[in-house]
Order: sequence, then structure tokens, then C-alpha cells
Amino acid sequence: MKTQVAIIGGGPSGLLLSQLLYTRGIESIVLERKTKDYVLGRIRAGVLEQGMVSLMEEAGCADRLHEECFVHDGTFVAYGEKMFRIDFKELTGTPVIVYGQTEVTRDLYEAREKADGKIEFNVEDVVINNADTDAPYVTYTVDGLERRIDCDFVAGCDGFHGVSRRTIPADVLREYEKVYPFGWLGILSETPPVNHELIYSNSERGFALASMRNENLCRYYIQCSLADTEEDWSDEAFWDEFKKRIPAHQAEKLITGPSIEKSIAPLRSFVTEPMRWGRLFLCGDAAHIVPPTGAKGLNTAASDVHYLYNGLRDYYENGSSEGIDSYSEKALARVWKAERFSWWFSSLMHRYPDQTEFDLKMQVAELEYLSSNKAAQQAMAENYVGLPY
Amino acid sequence: MKTQVAIIGGGPSGLLLSQLLYTRGIESIVLERKTKDYVLGRIRAGVLEQGMVSLMEEAGCADRLHEECFVHDGTFVAYGEKMFRIDFKELTGTPVIVYGQTEVTRDLYEAREKADGKIEFNVEDVVINNADTDAPYVTYTVDGLERRIDCDFVAGCDGFHGVSRRTIPADVLREYEKVYPFGWLGILSETPPVNHELIYSNSERGFALASMRNENLCRYYIQCSLADTEEDWSDEAFWDEFKKRIPAHQAEKLITGPSIEKSIAPLRSFVTEPMRWGRLFLCGDAAHIVPPTGAKGLNTAASDVHYLYNGLRDYYENGSSEGIDSYSEKALARVWKAERFSWWFSSLMHRYPDQTEFDLKMQVAELEYLSSNKAAQQAMAENYVGLPY
Repeated sequence: MKTQVAIIGGGPSGLLLSQLLYTRGIESIVLERKTKDYVLGRIRAGVLEQGMVSLMEEAGCADRLHEECFVHDGTFVAYGEKMFRIDFKELTGTPVIVYGQTEVTRDLYEAREKADGKIEFNVEDVVINNADTDAPYVTYTVDGLERRIDCDFVAGCDGFHGVSRRTIPADVLREYEKVYPFGWLGILSETPPVNHELIYSNSERGFALASMRNENLCRYYIQCSLADTEEDWSDEAFWDEFKKRIPAHQAEKLITGPSIEKSIAPLRSFVTEPMRWGRLFLCGDAAHIVPPTGAKGLNTAASDVHYLYNGLRDYYENGSSEGIDSYSEKALARVWKAERFSWWFSSLMHRYPDQTEFDLKMQVAELEYLSSNKAAQQAMAENYVGLPY
Repeated sequence: MKTQVAIIGGGPSGLLLSQLLYTRGIESIVLERKTKDYVLGRIRAGVLEQGMVSLMEEAGCADRLHEECFVHDGTFVAYGEKMFRIDFKELTGTPVIVYGQTEVTRDLYEAREKADGKIEFNVEDVVINNADTDAPYVTYTVDGLERRIDCDFVAGCDGFHGVSRRTIPADVLREYEKVYPFGWLGILSETPPVNHELIYSNSERGFALASMRNENLCRYYIQCSLADTEEDWSDEAFWDEFKKRIPAHQAEKLITGPSIEKSIAPLRSFVTEPMRWGRLFLCGDAAHIVPPTGAKGLNTAASDVHYLYNGLRDYYENGSSEGIDSYSEKALARVWKAERFSWWFSSLMHRYPDQTEFDLKMQVAELEYLSSNKAAQQAMAENYVGLPY
């Protein structure tokens, strides 16, 4: 087979890039290791920056999003029994959009299918060949049959564990990583949200986040030990702990119910540089990971897609290599900003095993400052709603 | 002897408090362990917040300050070869004032002497007695003679190593501390400043600060190992290292000369709570220490003096205990903000022995963000010029 852009990975980044390219008449094929149902079964964050929403609009996939999404003009930050609000709308003019990543992915699949976009599922043994030449090609197998795609470019949208990053020679890459000494235990529950906006809570028992997908679907998290497993946490134990980690005036409003999903995720900051090698471009989790605090994962992937899509357009429409040549630098400049914010917000909100009493006081001092100072709120709000591309 | 307020410590906090009380007809006696020349020989920071300047004005001691000071509308922050400016004046409407702590102390001594203020030097064996009763008194010896001062209140302005904090029972106090794994090697040199404003520099060889006292007196610092001694650093070695830690376009302008003072100071964050025990009030370094990054030491002492002076005025002029009763809480609220800022700015600018490559990238990301984002600059400028009392 032949295409212009081979896209490795059928998650939201790969699908969004594919659909955006389609709107400009640029051909692509998406290769996905799993099934569509598997991809749609992955529960991820649900807070979208305006930049991501604009890309969905540009891709022609934002109708259901606009219909079903929740607009959040602010968020709550709690510490102990204190709680304050950061007003995104007032501070930046921009709200954030609550719409699950699963729904984004579903909308993108629908659009790709409607357009007869080529997506291959269940692909195995993907190899990206000759990425450092002008004639890259991708080989893989489906149902035991070998296939080959010749292409102009390869977009590596296949996540942290994917083949794309590993294709780049180790001596070309520089990797930066921080592993956090705790995880997030999250549950989905068909209950009404405890609050109409998110609550990020720094409690002496550890971090908690009250998040939501819609009026009857909650996503709640608590910081947990990396040694914990889902089996260690009955629903009852989760609700008990969660209640103790949000202010009493919120806990008393909490409606609990059976979990329909429960999982533990580790927290990691990770960046690889550069994000381009020859004609292979890394996009999203393939190049960088943020801890989930502040919901920058999908949004930072979207900013990569933005730069790559525009670079490829520039190449095909204007014959200019400028956009793709500056892709890595531009994408990374914004990636590091998102990494900084996620690291800062994680550091501010969690308990760390090696924290001293002074360190804890610094958290409180910073939270008091954030609760009372406009410049600090402005900086937080701008980062939360998304810095400009 | 009898007085209204016994002040332990003849440094700038004690003297300023004494002089302010004098302007309202409130009597005090200052007890100083050393000689006046010794106190004036101590080299300290030289950046004053507007709040400190206002207190000097209120004390009637600001004439020479206004004549000789330098007004800095901003400061430079460098990292590697990059350098940017934070414009305090534009962002906050307020500059900072460069005028050495030694000069502040000299002006305060002069004013106290002119007013026949009582200052006892060379006092030994100071004991604060009955501070938890309505009849405190201070005993001490001078030239082997025992003395006693009966007073209404005791102000503990005698620094980190002074007797005041140690007078408070250990089970009453809670102490918070962070010791930084490096020191600052500072020199004074009679040379023109390399820049008309300060340069805080994060270099891969460690932190450096280009500061000044006047047009022909520089105060330069470099981060050094805690194992270093002054003897390890010849003037030549200092200048060599300093040049390598500021951007080349600054280093090439640097004029060097013999040092007239050279010393190494450790960096520490320290806070004790509460700052009041009965009729004893802790003020300045007796209650809290900040690392010197951002020059918050004297300025935070000044904010304590502000709250204590107003509390005592309220007591003597209006018969109200409200001000002194809320002293500890009010002073500490601002102390923790200054602690947070000093800790943040220190963390941003220094090399730490346990820093990972990711941590270093977070410093660069934060510096890039600070160099380009107005809200971040606003927050930095507000803290640097001094948060409101």
C-alpha cells in the first residue's frame, strides 16, 4: 500500500491527525495494535483545553462535543477544610470543557469511518523502516499476513510503550523522567457529581480529586500507595477514604454508589528530545507523559497534533519544509510548559513520603498565596485553560 | 531601672522598634551583646522594600537614605547566556531601594543617640524573667555588674542565636527548618557594578548574584560548597568563577578589584511558631530566617516591627490589647509568604547536589516561563517588592 502519512496508533492523537489531514485532502492510514472496542474502553481524563476543542471543530468532529459537554468556568482547590475557587473565565476569558477522552475518541472514529478513512486494527510486529531517508515504509502483520505501507512521513502516535520512540536510535534521543512515589486510584460511578466543578484537594491523608463526566457519571480519585492493588480497595473503603480527603462541607453532600470501573495509575513526568527523527514524528504520549494533575495529557498531545498537522499542510500545500523542520522545537517548547505546570500542581497537591514539616508548610503557604493573590491565580488559570499554541 | 519596652538586640530591628516607639512617646531600652562598631561591621543585604522605607520615614530616619539610595525599577534574571528583566515599576508601580543594611543601622543609631535613647552595649548573661506574667523583667551584667530592667513588654530582636527564643519553653514552640546544601561566598569590592541593576544568575556552575551598594561598591556572590572556607577562595579564583556564572555579555563588562570583605554564609529557611509568649515578642531573625535569595531577611524583620509597633501603640494609646494579641498571627502570615518566595526563588536559581536531569529541565522551563509570561512576572515582582503588610 501507499499513503502520504502512516500514523502509528489509533488513539485520539492519531485519529485527530488523520481526520485533520483528511480535511485538507492529505491521505493517511492509521495502524492500531488493539481493537476499536479496546481503545474505547480505556478510561482517561475528561478536561479539554480550548485549543483541543478548536482542533475538533477544524476536524469537523465537534457537534456532539458541543451538545453534550459541560463548560467549567473555574475549578475548586481545597486544603484541609479550606476551599477556594480559581475563576478561569474571569481571569482568562476562557473556560475549560468537560468531555471524556473516550467520547472524543468515539467521535473521531465515527468521522474517520464516515469518510472511509483507513484504519487497520489488530496490527502486530509494526516496524518503521528507513525513517531517516526520503522513502520510509512501515511493515506489520494482520492475521499472520505481512503488509507494507510506503509513505512520505510517519506519525508516531502510539504512546509511551509504542514502537515509534524505540525506532529512533538511542544515541539520538535524550530522555528526562521523574517517577512520583504514589499512584492514583480512580473509580467511575453512576452518581451525580459532588460539585458542579472539579475539586482538587490537598488533605493530610493525601490528594483527592472530584471530577466528572456528566450529570450522572463521576470520576473520583485518591492518591494511593504504589504497592496497592485495585483488590485492596473495596468501593466502601474508597468512599470512606475519599470523604475524609475533601472538606466536610463537600463530603456531606457526596452521593456514593457502586463503581463501574476502578483502576490504579502510576504518575510519571517524561519527555524525550527531539520529537523528530528524519521523517518520523513523535506525537503525544509517545514523546512525553505528564502526571494527571491538571489534565494536560490529551491536551498536550493535541498541541503536538496542531504543530504536526500545520507542518504537513505547509509541506503539501506550499511545498515548504519549514513547519516540519521546526516541529520538534515548537512542540517541545509547549510540552515543557505543560510538564512544568503538571509537576508544580502535582508537587503542590500531594503528600510525599520524604516531606518534612517545613515542606508541608511550604505547600500550605503556596495554597494560601494562591487563594489570595490575583497574579498567582492568573498564572494558574492561564496554564490550566492552556497556554497559547 | 524601669522602662515600658525592653528590647533585646541592637541590630536594625531592635533599633527601628525603639525609634518608632520613641516617636510616640513610648520608652524603651535596647540591650546589645556586642559593641556598636561590631554591629556596624556586619555586612548584610542591601535591598529594601517600600514598607521598610516607610517605617524608616515614620521613624524620622530616612533623610540620608533618600539622598544616597539607589532606586531599582527592576532586576535581571539570567540562565546560561540568556538574560531577561523583571520590571517592578511597570508591574507593581513600586521600585525597590538599594541601601545597605549597615547604613540603615548607622542611621538608626544616630537617631537613637540624638534622642538620648538608652542603648546598653556589651551586655552579658541576659535573662528574660517572668515573661509569662504581667511583670516581666530582664537581668544582665555589664562590666561584671548585675543590672535589672522592669518593663511592661520584652521585644526579642536578638537574632537566631539570641536568648529570646530560647526563653520560650520548648513545648510551646514549633520549629520548621530547611538547611540548603550549599553556601554563598560573598565579596565586597570597591569597583563599579557590572550592571545598573542586580543580576540573579542560574548557571550550570551554580548560582551567582551581582549586587551593589553604590556606584563604586559591589557586592557579588557565588554559590559554594559548605565545605569551602574563605581561605579556599583567592580574589582571583572568585573573579574567575564569578565571570563564568554570568552571561558572557555581562562578564566582559566586569571590572574586578581587590576584595575588602569576603565571607561564606550558609542558607537556611527557619520559622518558629508562635512569635509571642506572654509579654515576650519575637521579632526578625529571632523567629525566622530566610535564605538570602530575594533579600527578604531585613524586610521581613521590618514587617514584624510594623505589626509589633502598631500593637504596642494600640496598647499604650488606646488601651487595647487587640494588636499585641494578634501580633503572632499577623506577623506569621506575612513571614510564611516571604519564606515561600525565598524558598521558591532559591530552588529556581541554585544547583542542588541531588538534582536529576528532569529537575534541571524544570528550572529551565520555569525560567523560560518567567521570562515570557506576564502573570508569572507579576507574581515575582509583587513578592520581590514586598507583599502588603
